[in-house]
Parts: sequence; structure tokens; C-alpha cells
Amino acid sequence: MRAILHVCTTCRGQSAEPVEPRPGASLHDLLSSSPLPEGVELRAVECLSACSQGCSVALSAPGKWSYVYGRLTPEDYPEILNGAAAYAATEDGLVPWRERPVIFRKQSLARIPPQE
Amino acid sequence: MRAILHVCTTCRGQSAEPVEPRPGASLHDLLSSSPLPEGVELRAVECLSACSQGCSVALSAPGKWSYVYGRLTPEDYPEILNGAAAYAATEDGLVPWRERPVIFRKQSLARIPPQE
Repeated sequence: MRAILHVCTTCRGQSAEPVEPRPGASLHDLLSSSPLPEGVELRAVECLSACSQGCSVALSAPGKWSYVYGRLTPEDYPEILNGAAAYAATEDGLVPWRERPVIFRKQSLARIPPQE
Repeated sequence: MRAILHVCTTCRGQSAEPVEPRPGASLHDLLSSSPLPEGVELRAVECLSACSQGCSVALSAPGKWSYVYGRLTPEDYPEILNGAAAYAATEDGLVPWRERPVIFRKQSLARIPPQE
């Protein structure tokens, strides 16, 4: 089953000033222009309700823990793809700590247990 | 299909000082001593990776958006149950804004789109 990498395209990032295009949209553009890791599908989403912690992305897949990460920047896209690849390769979504990109170790906003 | 109310039992809350029992465990105790709304199942979980934003809970159900809420206190348990009841009654997990408890309006940490 494929892992879904959800990217909030409306995230404004951590800047106090408005930035156009929105950093979330720029992040999605960079990800969608990149080769995706095996087993990863990219999806744009209009809001992950983490507005003060943007940019934000979420990883989910049937039977796995879901994760949400925040305070990301468009420049983080290669590491986000590395993290998504590691997630997709797990059975349960739990990537060993040392194998997680630093942004995923330090910028987790939340995780949710697997659905049955 | 039942909605699952996941409660982090290891959350320390927003206090700088350690509190025992942990506020997350106290919140779980209060919830588990309460009649649960129709269609809601309570589950303890050891960490929702929202440690700086505790206490935290998550709502999930097959086919619905999942939500994580934070900066909760044990005293919020009646409103958490109200919010869980409203969530369980939806088809897609999207409770109209005015029907959400204030803690759910103001203290969302993240949401994740439905799984297929």
C-alpha cells in the first residue's frame, strides 16, 4: 500500500510578512518536480490545521502510524523525500530514530496511531 | 465504524515543573471514568509526539479526517467528550466550526486527510 505525502499548499511559513507564492505552494512545486521515492504518492492539501507551524506535511498509509511535521521550508524538500522514503519502507510507519532526517526528529508536530 | 479518541498518558502538560501523576494520565483517568458518547472508543497511547504541546489527544476513524489537539488540561475532559461526540456523528470528520468546542477551535495541532 502506498504512503501518502500530504503537503499543505496554503502554509505561509514562519515569516511574519506575507510571502507570495506561499511557501507551502513552493514546497509542493519542488516536490512535484522531483522523482518520488518508491511507494510514495504526493498529494496537495489546502490546510493541515498547523497554520502557526508551517510549512507542514503529513505522512500516512493504511496500517501505519501517521506523522505531521512543521516549521519546514521549501528548501527542505530533499530531506522530506528521504524521510518519506524511509517511512514508506516500514511496516508500521515507525522509522528508527537514527534513520530519520533531522527535520523529522526535531520538527514533529504530532503522530496518530494506525487505523485498523 | 467507531471513532477512536486517543489520549496521550505520558503528556506532562504545560507546567515547567514535573507533575505526578502525569497530567496526561489524569486526563485519561477522568475520561475513562466518564460515560463515552455513542460511537466513541477511548484508547490510551504512550506518546503522540506533541510533547511540548501537552496534554494532547487525537481523533481518528476510517474514512474521516484525523485531528490532534494540544495544550489541554485534565479539566477539559467534558469538552473533549463533547468534541469527540460531534466528530463521531460526522461522515467525514469535519465538524462545523460553530459546533466545535472552543478548545478544539483554538488548540488544533494538526489534521490529516482521510485514508482510502
